[in-house]
Amino acid sequence: MKSDELFALLRRRGVLWPSAEIYGGAQGLYDYGPLGAALKRRVEDAWAAWFVGLSHDYYLVDPAEMLPEAVVRASGHLENFTDPEVTCENCHTAFRADTILEKVRPEGVDGLTPGEIAEIVRSRGVKCPSCGSVALSVPKPFNLMFGVDFGVTGHERVYLRPETAQSSYLSFPRMWDVGRRALPLGIAIVGKAYRNEIAPRQILFRMRAFTQSELQIFFDPEHFQLPFDRVRDESLPVVRAARRLAGSEEVEMTRAEDLVRSGGLPEFYVFHLAHSFRFFRDVLGFPVARLRLLEKSDQERAFYNRIQFDIEADLESLGGFKELGAVHYRGDYDLSRHGQGSGRDLSVTLSDGRSVLPHVLELTNGPDRDIWALADLHLGRDGERTVWRLPPYLAPVAVGVFPLIEKAHAEYALRVADDLAAAGLSVRYDAGSSIGRRYARMDEVGTPFCVTVDGETLAEGPTHDTVTVRERDSKAQERVAVRDLFGRIQAALRFPRAARS
Amino acid sequence: MKSDELFALLRRRGVLWPSAEIYGGAQGLYDYGPLGAALKRRVEDAWAAWFVGLSHDYYLVDPAEMLPEAVVRASGHLENFTDPEVTCENCHTAFRADTILEKVRPEGVDGLTPGEIAEIVRSRGVKCPSCGSVALSVPKPFNLMFGVDFGVTGHERVYLRPETAQSSYLSFPRMWDVGRRALPLGIAIVGKAYRNEIAPRQILFRMRAFTQSELQIFFDPEHFQLPFDRVRDESLPVVRAARRLAGSEEVEMTRAEDLVRSGGLPEFYVFHLAHSFRFFRDVLGFPVARLRLLEKSDQERAFYNRIQFDIEADLESLGGFKELGAVHYRGDYDLSRHGQGSGRDLSVTLSDGRSVLPHVLELTNGPDRDIWALADLHLGRDGERTVWRLPPYLAPVAVGVFPLIEKAHAEYALRVADDLAAAGLSVRYDAGSSIGRRYARMDEVGTPFCVTVDGETLAEGPTHDTVTVRERDSKAQERVAVRDLFGRIQAALRFPRAARS
Repeated sequence: MKSDELFALLRRRGVLWPSAEIYGGAQGLYDYGPLGAALKRRVEDAWAAWFVGLSHDYYLVDPAEMLPEAVVRASGHLENFTDPEVTCENCHTAFRADTILEKVRPEGVDGLTPGEIAEIVRSRGVKCPSCGSVALSVPKPFNLMFGVDFGVTGHERVYLRPETAQSSYLSFPRMWDVGRRALPLGIAIVGKAYRNEIAPRQILFRMRAFTQSELQIFFDPEHFQLPFDRVRDESLPVVRAARRLAGSEEVEMTRAEDLVRSGGLPEFYVFHLAHSFRFFRDVLGFPVARLRLLEKSDQERAFYNRIQFDIEADLESLGGFKELGAVHYRGDYDLSRHGQGSGRDLSVTLSDGRSVLPHVLELTNGPDRDIWALADLHLGRDGERTVWRLPPYLAPVAVGVFPLIEKAHAEYALRVADDLAAAGLSVRYDAGSSIGRRYARMDEVGTPFCVTVDGETLAEGPTHDTVTVRERDSKAQERVAVRDLFGRIQAALRFPRAARS
Repeated sequence: MKSDELFALLRRRGVLWPSAEIYGGAQGLYDYGPLGAALKRRVEDAWAAWFVGLSHDYYLVDPAEMLPEAVVRASGHLENFTDPEVTCENCHTAFRADTILEKVRPEGVDGLTPGEIAEIVRSRGVKCPSCGSVALSVPKPFNLMFGVDFGVTGHERVYLRPETAQSSYLSFPRMWDVGRRALPLGIAIVGKAYRNEIAPRQILFRMRAFTQSELQIFFDPEHFQLPFDRVRDESLPVVRAARRLAGSEEVEMTRAEDLVRSGGLPEFYVFHLAHSFRFFRDVLGFPVARLRLLEKSDQERAFYNRIQFDIEADLESLGGFKELGAVHYRGDYDLSRHGQGSGRDLSVTLSDGRSVLPHVLELTNGPDRDIWALADLHLGRDGERTVWRLPPYLAPVAVGVFPLIEKAHAEYALRVADDLAAAGLSVRYDAGSSIGRRYARMDEVGTPFCVTVDGETLAEGPTHDTVTVRERDSKAQERVAVRDLFGRIQAALRFPRAARS
């Protein structure tokens, strides 16, 4: 589906819509409706079960979203968290430089100076996308952070965090103290980040307020041993930076072991790259053919990232591969900067007596983007019907419960619905219209199971009551005893988990 | 416990700590550590199970936290969301007027003009709490909203929402369209709100970034029928406004029915007041003797609130009764203001053909405050040990799993831990120190069950393996078959639910 068509469907079904719609909206802000809020929660929980579950020493925390100015000065965001902004001197519209140059330079503007960008604009005769004028300014750096006056003095300033990662770095010393005082130590956050994007677009892909799910693993650079056998034979769809520089974006299916042996990557990096890939394949259920692990070159990645692969999915609605997640080996950059900024030595003493400034491996993901990709890759036509083939454990509604005939079966059906809800399932009771239309409504929002109470249910003895359970993908129907219903549905709703190390 | 003592314990155990600690913190911002983040999530989920579960037509949504200026202009926040601020002209410290007057006027300053406040300050010789000078300014209104420049033009401004309620009001038209087009319709949000408090204090009780869980029920003022029988005989600890004005704050246990019959309150209001009371008593487990429902007088409540009871708990750490939640009957104020502000008629056409501007009943709660109250009321000494008697379904760690002797039993214990985690339980594996100390650590963070794998476990046949399960409050120990473990623990972890209406 095209982006507009997909968005219209999601809006109609109450998954998401533009924020403050009745006031004309606010660029780059979206609201999740009931189905979207539930889906987002399931995706976040699935992420946490997968990544935080990787070790007994990985933890989920929830720090404040506001950062004092000293923090973003130390992290470099105050100075460097900018996008080049080009303004049309005719119509005064502002654009990101890479947007302006999209057609003439699809590879982006990373690494170019303002002068180089201006030269491309001039030499290629690039026009304002809004008014068609050629009066485009030289790019200026525009800081993407939202700053806020804090307190009553007018002298104190905080920033809405531009990434959750900074909150994890700040948490490290306290987490070291309350934990086992051993490395690796993982600190995960699922929470909001804010960026004043010059040109928000592609709906959930470039918002001004969005959610990140990130795991920061603090480790001893001399010793980060992992059960590499668990990924050794995994075949990964990689595009190496060297190949890209040579002009090919073709995916090469490569064994994890070979990425280490002949590919020059450390085991700990490949171990986590493989687990990140598996999250998208095994947890979100994306086809391998639509995924790739794209290595960023020296020019593309931030200077503190020693190794970076982006995990991208090929999305029809957005016209190609888009970043969903990434694995960044950040070295000791973060703790070193915050050590300097706070004047506190953030190195730790290990059990063997060594003092170490931990290195950081960052596994990032964006639940909003995941949701869009889940819609793009799993929602579509199946003959006459529209079906959202979400993995069952992600479905916002786990089970629809219907009385076949409202008058006769509503009381029993409501009891079934309430019992399943009390047991913790997300249930939607629906008594309106034909069974076929009720199935159709549930198919469209990805509900894996529909339960219908009918004459047969009531005719049977109270201990042998059965209902019809209809499965979304196969449309197969089956009689199931009411007392087995919860166990049957629940079994399909467990999140996949990786083995713990 | 005193506030400081309680906070020290919570910090030591990784429940919460001041935000950006290594930079000296930021006033009014706190971070939740692993246990706090998990506890908060459980409290939020329990709230949603209870309140959103009240009806099939109540929904949880997740809108953006930023509001365009036009929204807060229409809602009145731009003009009126202020606290009177008094500045010391000697030391330049700013204070909330009610803080300054705390000792001479404990009932607060609601309804007083700046001139009246200044007159009290003068006549009572109130001094600056910081430097002792009497040079205190006349109060000025200080707007508590955080404003943010939005977009690149410098002309657009948004505000971090000062309450989640506004997001629900904005969502109403879209929710009407995607839903059953019938009243009542409930829109719930569990999300962040932001206030630039002049004087943040009492840790989780007055923060600058905090979480609200609120349900806005949109209803037809001519017809809001509910199964009142479900609460008719409930005895509620009320303090009526008339009695308070007459000088008594004494609680009168009053039957719900009598609050309607002779108390002049509508059934729909008392129904929800009783359910809010039950949330604190039955879900959070607070003793009735520590709760009261305090009616606000005309002078105290906002002019658009027609009826308001605050639900307060008596907290030793904060020196008395503190507000945890409230029930506000807001009439048609909200939809009427946003109708005017947006230029769109927000009335709806009901199935009987009537056009109605829905009234709003607001049920509010604050998960951060709940957490503090859960610590104040449930965490304490029991002989030699410190125990947090959290309701089991709220415990951040549901089960601790221990090998009796690490060398001999770790492998089996880790398998038990992983199996319980895979089934969706929050598990903490602990192999360190004596069993007694491991129990003590789990008691302190409220873990209801501890499972120990020992020699007996391994000696038994593989299908009859048993472990020791130790219950937190009774300290009773019992042998339980491993295969029954999940079911046994899970049964204690279901959230209490009200009957659905």
